[in-house]
Amino acid sequence: MTFVRSNIAAMEGYSWGEQPQDARTIKLNTNENPYPSSPRVQAALRDFSIESLRRYPEPTARALREALARLHNLTPEHFLLTNGGDEALRLALTTFVDPGATFSMATPSYSLYSVLAQIQDARLHSIALNADWSMPADIGRQLKLAQSRLTCLVNPHAPSGTLTNLPAYGQIAWQQDGVLLVDEAYVNFVDPSRQHDATQLVREHDNILLLRSFSKGYGLAGLRLGYLIGDPALIEPIMWKTRDSYNVNHLSQVLGLAAIEDQEYARSTWARVREERVRVAAVLENLGLPSSPSESNFILVQSNPSRRPARELYVGLKARHILVRYFDTPELGDKLRITIGTADENDALITALKQLL
Amino acid sequence: MTFVRSNIAAMEGYSWGEQPQDARTIKLNTNENPYPSSPRVQAALRDFSIESLRRYPEPTARALREALARLHNLTPEHFLLTNGGDEALRLALTTFVDPGATFSMATPSYSLYSVLAQIQDARLHSIALNADWSMPADIGRQLKLAQSRLTCLVNPHAPSGTLTNLPAYGQIAWQQDGVLLVDEAYVNFVDPSRQHDATQLVREHDNILLLRSFSKGYGLAGLRLGYLIGDPALIEPIMWKTRDSYNVNHLSQVLGLAAIEDQEYARSTWARVREERVRVAAVLENLGLPSSPSESNFILVQSNPSRRPARELYVGLKARHILVRYFDTPELGDKLRITIGTADENDALITALKQLL
Repeated sequence: MTFVRSNIAAMEGYSWGEQPQDARTIKLNTNENPYPSSPRVQAALRDFSIESLRRYPEPTARALREALARLHNLTPEHFLLTNGGDEALRLALTTFVDPGATFSMATPSYSLYSVLAQIQDARLHSIALNADWSMPADIGRQLKLAQSRLTCLVNPHAPSGTLTNLPAYGQIAWQQDGVLLVDEAYVNFVDPSRQHDATQLVREHDNILLLRSFSKGYGLAGLRLGYLIGDPALIEPIMWKTRDSYNVNHLSQVLGLAAIEDQEYARSTWARVREERVRVAAVLENLGLPSSPSESNFILVQSNPSRRPARELYVGLKARHILVRYFDTPELGDKLRITIGTADENDALITALKQLL
Repeated sequence: MTFVRSNIAAMEGYSWGEQPQDARTIKLNTNENPYPSSPRVQAALRDFSIESLRRYPEPTARALREALARLHNLTPEHFLLTNGGDEALRLALTTFVDPGATFSMATPSYSLYSVLAQIQDARLHSIALNADWSMPADIGRQLKLAQSRLTCLVNPHAPSGTLTNLPAYGQIAWQQDGVLLVDEAYVNFVDPSRQHDATQLVREHDNILLLRSFSKGYGLAGLRLGYLIGDPALIEPIMWKTRDSYNVNHLSQVLGLAAIEDQEYARSTWARVREERVRVAAVLENLGLPSSPSESNFILVQSNPSRRPARELYVGLKARHILVRYFDTPELGDKLRITIGTADENDALITALKQLL
């Protein structure tokens, strides 16, 4: 006898990237920041007394919301902290999408979106991207026709790294009747010269949520900390009804605050990643492995299947203790998604690829 | 225009206990352990490098599950770690209860249960407890008739502290067709002479889940760490499908491990709480405030409304910077739930109550 709901029994779970715990592996497969978080985070940890863990955390992560409000020039009521960005995605589905109603995503993008839709027993509307990873011109109309209650679009796009300009999202928000969640997990790595700041969308639209993460930008993937930015009317039902009351633990609140209060340090890591992104992409292109322009902390590399297929490169790199991400799907099976590491890690990658080609 | 699901729009959120952040308040309202976690937890924190937060956590909390398997004499596959016990409750609903299907709980008990049922849009079947807080004799039959998919029962019971013996749960598990979750948030405070060990139920029944928490027993409410114990077939769909892949952060895994590996220290805090529980209950009874026998870290005190109603006592204590829990409901409006604190905190409570009476 099974006790499990039929939609859960029928679905496959999310396949996470390999997470080896050894120090030897050069890990370029799950888009972590190659640099640790600010020294201020280590200092906050050092000063932390476990006596303060005896009590429940501040339920609304007030201090963090206030700091984020200053950082983004909005109000604390525009923010909701979550146990990693994944929790924010799940909460958006729980709050806005009835079972049987439509949830939309672009394909390919973050494969967790469709897993969460299946857990919620939502109907999945999949939007095929153009060959250059741009969104189809009729996406807003598609979403309206599908009566999409929630649409998740990642920008910069994963796994391509492509940045879409903001007016496109404003247009989609107008053209359809659901909530549009723009997943900005990688937005910290966008070149500042692009002057890309999506918070303007939140001021102008009552149906746009932005998702940010501490995992990549702040080197804190292990801490699980993310946040939603949105009109207070969108944030409120999640804050007061659908999330677990103490979803963000006290230590994460303290360390997250220390991390965002050192913007100078964080920006220095983003700049270093950008420099290496340009260098690695150029070197790999010279090796016959071009990638589309990336504004993220990874590049999507096109293999030459007649020479050396992507899967073989993945296996060969893994044998050399270098992990990159290979997706065995029709759109991505001839490509590799490679996280930008430190200069040394990237050099090791380049050397290994030269040997393999 | 609202974007929120109608069941979410219609419901009220969970009302958490007051969580003042000042050090002055004597906080006897949300059942925290009055003692901090083991010094080994502080040592683990001191030795922790934020470099290790750069990467994602081990997704399945393997080291913790292995340690728990040794502690409870089961296998790692019997365990699932969660971001606090509340997440475990939510995941049980997500995994086992279809929207529209029946979820059951006793009344009164943990008010979050019904909130979670509303989020899942489940039908709520409420079981009225007997006047002495024991379960009705026909509870198994009630659950079978209601076609309950999941039933949550807290043992020791909250808010009364009453311990129910294990055979009753085995019987309920047999008599109905759903999953029975026994919420053991307070079980660490049961007198060892009772030889109460519910893991035997898990060995004998494929439809019983036990919920444990680090919040009370290990003085780590601020860390958010709980776990489910159950037949691997019950654990598996939660582990691999419905939970967020990285639901327990790396720091919590490390500190939780340090906490459970110092059982001697933890047991010493439980013993001190039990001694104070006996003392406080006896003193309050002499003041005309009797309580039912508690095997938990709180007591439910009966006020004498003709002398001084419970609400007035709550207000009077609060004015003296002592917080206790008052529930404004028909069953509980003449009672106060008081957490057992340190000897000093309990003395302050007793002094204040003497003044108020």
